[in-house]
Amino acid sequence: MIRAGILGPTGYAGLELIKILLRHPEAQVVYLGARREERPAIDAIWPILRGRVEQRCALLDKDPFPAMDVAFIALPHTVAMNYVPRLLAQGTKVVDISADYRLKDAATYRKWYKVEHTDPGNLGVAAYGLCELFRAQIAGASLVANPGCYPTAVALALAPLLSGGGATPGGQIIVDAKSGVSGAGRDPKPELHFPEANESITAYKVGVHQHTGEILQTAAALAGRETPVLFVPHLIPMDRGILATAYVPLAGEMTTEELKKLYADFYGGERFVRVRTDDGIPATKHVFNTNCCDIAVRAVGRTAVVVACIDNLIKGASGQAVQNMNILFNLDEASGLA
Amino acid sequence: MIRAGILGPTGYAGLELIKILLRHPEAQVVYLGARREERPAIDAIWPILRGRVEQRCALLDKDPFPAMDVAFIALPHTVAMNYVPRLLAQGTKVVDISADYRLKDAATYRKWYKVEHTDPGNLGVAAYGLCELFRAQIAGASLVANPGCYPTAVALALAPLLSGGGATPGGQIIVDAKSGVSGAGRDPKPELHFPEANESITAYKVGVHQHTGEILQTAAALAGRETPVLFVPHLIPMDRGILATAYVPLAGEMTTEELKKLYADFYGGERFVRVRTDDGIPATKHVFNTNCCDIAVRAVGRTAVVVACIDNLIKGASGQAVQNMNILFNLDEASGLA
Amino acid sequence: MIRAGILGPTGYAGLELIKILLRHPEAQVVYLGARREERPAIDAIWPILRGRVEQRCALLDKDPFPAMDVAFIALPHTVAMNYVPRLLAQGTKVVDISADYRLKDAATYRKWYKVEHTDPGNLGVAAYGLCELFRAQIAGASLVANPGCYPTAVALALAPLLSGGGATPGGQIIVDAKSGVSGAGRDPKPELHFPEANESITAYKVGVHQHTGEILQTAAALAGRETPVLFVPHLIPMDRGILATAYVPLAGEMTTEELKKLYADFYGGERFVRVRTDDGIPATKHVFNTNCCDIAVRAVGRTAVVVACIDNLIKGASGQAVQNMNILFNLDEASGLA
Amino acid sequence: MIRAGILGPTGYAGLELIKILLRHPEAQVVYLGARREERPAIDAIWPILRGRVEQRCALLDKDPFPAMDVAFIALPHTVAMNYVPRLLAQGTKVVDISADYRLKDAATYRKWYKVEHTDPGNLGVAAYGLCELFRAQIAGASLVANPGCYPTAVALALAPLLSGGGATPGGQIIVDAKSGVSGAGRDPKPELHFPEANESITAYKVGVHQHTGEILQTAAALAGRETPVLFVPHLIPMDRGILATAYVPLAGEMTTEELKKLYADFYGGERFVRVRTDDGIPATKHVFNTNCCDIAVRAVGRTAVVVACIDNLIKGASGQAVQNMNILFNLDEASGLA
Repeated sequence: MIRAGILGPTGYAGLELIKILLRHPEAQVVYLGARREERPAIDAIWPILRGRVEQRCALLDKDPFPAMDVAFIALPHTVAMNYVPRLLAQGTKVVDISADYRLKDAATYRKWYKVEHTDPGNLGVAAYGLCELFRAQIAGASLVANPGCYPTAVALALAPLLSGGGATPGGQIIVDAKSGVSGAGRDPKPELHFPEANESITAYKVGVHQHTGEILQTAAALAGRETPVLFVPHLIPMDRGILATAYVPLAGEMTTEELKKLYADFYGGERFVRVRTDDGIPATKHVFNTNCCDIAVRAVGRTAVVVACIDNLIKGASGQAVQNMNILFNLDEASGLA
Repeated sequence: MIRAGILGPTGYAGLELIKILLRHPEAQVVYLGARREERPAIDAIWPILRGRVEQRCALLDKDPFPAMDVAFIALPHTVAMNYVPRLLAQGTKVVDISADYRLKDAATYRKWYKVEHTDPGNLGVAAYGLCELFRAQIAGASLVANPGCYPTAVALALAPLLSGGGATPGGQIIVDAKSGVSGAGRDPKPELHFPEANESITAYKVGVHQHTGEILQTAAALAGRETPVLFVPHLIPMDRGILATAYVPLAGEMTTEELKKLYADFYGGERFVRVRTDDGIPATKHVFNTNCCDIAVRAVGRTAVVVACIDNLIKGASGQAVQNMNILFNLDEASGLA
Repeated sequence: MIRAGILGPTGYAGLELIKILLRHPEAQVVYLGARREERPAIDAIWPILRGRVEQRCALLDKDPFPAMDVAFIALPHTVAMNYVPRLLAQGTKVVDISADYRLKDAATYRKWYKVEHTDPGNLGVAAYGLCELFRAQIAGASLVANPGCYPTAVALALAPLLSGGGATPGGQIIVDAKSGVSGAGRDPKPELHFPEANESITAYKVGVHQHTGEILQTAAALAGRETPVLFVPHLIPMDRGILATAYVPLAGEMTTEELKKLYADFYGGERFVRVRTDDGIPATKHVFNTNCCDIAVRAVGRTAVVVACIDNLIKGASGQAVQNMNILFNLDEASGLA
Repeated sequence: MIRAGILGPTGYAGLELIKILLRHPEAQVVYLGARREERPAIDAIWPILRGRVEQRCALLDKDPFPAMDVAFIALPHTVAMNYVPRLLAQGTKVVDISADYRLKDAATYRKWYKVEHTDPGNLGVAAYGLCELFRAQIAGASLVANPGCYPTAVALALAPLLSGGGATPGGQIIVDAKSGVSGAGRDPKPELHFPEANESITAYKVGVHQHTGEILQTAAALAGRETPVLFVPHLIPMDRGILATAYVPLAGEMTTEELKKLYADFYGGERFVRVRTDDGIPATKHVFNTNCCDIAVRAVGRTAVVVACIDNLIKGASGQAVQNMNILFNLDEASGLA
């Protein structure tokens, strides 16, 4: 039985982690650590867990870590990196759901997160945990940087065209993404107050969203060269789900059928990436509470339109984190996630 | 032209007041007063007003009041009463949308609002501004206590049975009310954070909601005796609207048709109370953004079931406030509200 | 491995059944039967199942049933009873999620469903599948009538007071219930069209909802005498969840603490009924996608207010159906449901 | 007083027309014509109108038209063109909210609407009613083709760049648009059933939406040359509102400030187009129930990102229709719309 800990169980990703691990046949939650002085019982934080989990949260920074095989960090970025060195030092593998170890380069981290990285040495150590694309690197890692929600959808949408050469090399890619509100976290904010966010849609952080650096890094890795991606996120009135619509200039003529084949072949063996080879277009409801990414493709003139849907809290956070754990411990990759 | 001021234009009731007064042919907003040091332009607070209102907010407590014929107070309870004496003293009529002058008795105020009233002398002066039921008292008043959102729906639902003797005298009435989230105001709170309030319903303040005192006071006034009303509010995932379902024990046998007739006769001349004499049952969408209260009645055994819908921000707040202004100044009662 | 069939897999209850059984360690779906000539693949009906279930639907009425240990019927009422005799005859146990076998009496069925029962002989054979209340009868049954969504929440809300004598014998009980839209099924209807149902609440079938007969039957069974229950359902703008607020006249003085103890004791050993003994009040979000019923109680004067929440598609339909299967086959009652 | 008729008052655009005209000081609804044999009272169709409008619907095709100064057609495309010749012949000016007269060319109509136009002679007669862009042509017209909801938002988003030469001539423009559900009309459809559309987002008709022809036609008119626009609409879970995000390749370097100035200058005198020159980005809530289009612009590399919001039923349909009427009759363009 894998002994798993969760740092940050009081946010949305933390809750989903607990729920997934409750169903996982080979893992057990042995530690919950939060920054709350009162060391609350977790079911006081999350009434949905009443009768299912009895544990109390330990106090991060005060209470010592127990022995753990793996620790999931679901803390905000800039906070997560405070704990990683200590966990690694005690032999605990780490899957960090925060953004702290996703960028390979401390300067890029500073650019997008406006703060100095305090553990730059481990940036090169971390594997980027986009399972379907970087499985080999993950398998041997001790530290996995779990991808961001948007970057997961975007990378899976772009990979077949970027890595296969279908996209115009260096051509301007546009990604227009739409997310439910849970992606913004659990802290109340004026713009996320129900009567403000409900029945409305807006764009935000146009071209300057902090996930842009991560998206560019993965696009470059896939394409083998710098690849411009203009990323514009939108907030839509629903709890969960991301739909990313990518517009990719094609290097040559391609039909929709050829695009479908390209994508279906690329993801042929993957359980969690489902390419629509029929006439359908995915909706986020099709992936709700699953670890799947559903993708449809269309050729419109010389542009490929790629529509990718994920559940931002599952494939975009906690589900992929468990998928990474499964890879780290050589388990069935779908364990706990089916 | 009536010169109107608004104290508290940055909340939801304030916005609706501005929007209604913009359409009012005989009133003009001459003053906006907020508790914000920076004296913001109102369209910076409410982008929907861009290009339609250019005024800046004065700073309450610092900047003097201008001459005004009427002032609407859309401030929180306990705050509103700080301004009423001064406004009355300068000859400005006041329509107070807060709860501060609704209860006739300082002890009752203390009981429900947990604070001492600082202007008890004006409690007896204030008219209770439920227009359809207390029109005569309102007409000659200088201070009108605009009813609460729930109490408006409840009083209109109960009045024909209580004042006409159809209800069992002193019989236990139950009111199960459901409100959209804007009724809770504009301040972000954890339970009103979009991903918490969305896709969920809960009951709250069961039997202890602060509007209970106001409901009981009106029920007693209508029935001419103490009348127990058990009031349970619920929060539902929508922006606006209240639906109150009242269960009233009947003094004698009544059919649904007799109930319909009782209600239709009682509200016969009213423009803003619409009794469903057909088979229909109102939905809050039927009164959205209107000053109407829609009512359906059914006899089920010896219980009358009364369903009443209002828009909590219009008939439940700012619309009724303007209706009260119209009465105060002897205008067409529907002016600005049609 | 229990061989399970589903008649009616194309509705919401059918989908949830499939999802639950996919996770059930001791059951396997061997048959899907629908009334669609084209015998569709189930993942063409439900894209969320793509890659997880490959089966096609057999054509009900044309294709023969295979050998099955248990059949779940998720067809509309009046349709379900066409299949039950045949299933029982072939030795298949039946859990009927429709309303066809819930009422003990053919005349009562006719009264509430406006149609003659075609299999009245099995009405007395069926066990009423409200697991926590009628577990013993279920265990030995070959046919289980899975309770309705509203009746499940209502029965669990009332049972401790009715069976224990806390309620005034024969006193008028009021149940004001609120349901998300999935409870109305998957067929498009004008009033369930998104722009009609969204941002609105209405009451419907006031005092005449077809679940009333079932509610009265259970109330009488629990109280040991006729017990009037006035039931008023409301439709609220969310996908899933029922919150029922019950108002029960108390036989004697009781405090909230005494009520909490009564309920906590009554449901002491139950995994799926969670009584809030703290100050909290449940929200439907606390039971979303779980088989739990969360209950809070308050004494207000001589009335007990009981708030009960369930997920209408899980504890109110498919989850409880699987719980019934677990009882029928002597499995851990929570198998597949944790 | 302008005598106005509405053909098609039972759809969402029809309702908004009625509500706007009720407030219009210089117009009066003298005719409502629907395709319903029972000639329903309009407030039976729309309970929100009870007590405000008493008219019954005439039966289109049976009952004769009265004398009218203007007729609004809010019927589906392919139906509207059946009535236009007759209305024009009797001297009634027509504002057609359907798509029937928007395209200048019958072959283009056939291409996008898959049906032969039956009144091609009037295609050249109709003015395209995008008020801010084609005001002069509208003023003298007898027939105005009211623009589609998406094309309105898109044209206003693109006009300053296309007509001023800021966009790369002939460069590929991408428009990613998001609409609330009311844009799909009032007929129930499986995919618009509340539990299907709620809590989900999807793309639809990728690159083949019927509004594409209209968008291309306007883009060509503004740019003075063929301009490729890839248009992808999305359906989001809210009642009303469109947000269109346009990605326009710039002919030369431009800063965000320069873009803001370009847009602010272009729309300088317009009451209903509000350019955000501050740091804000519009949300559809900012234009809810208004005739405004709010626009923000950002330069990101060599791409202009333009975010435009409208209320699809007001500026995208009935509000603009009344604005067109105001132009036709030389009234204040904002009459009834403020």
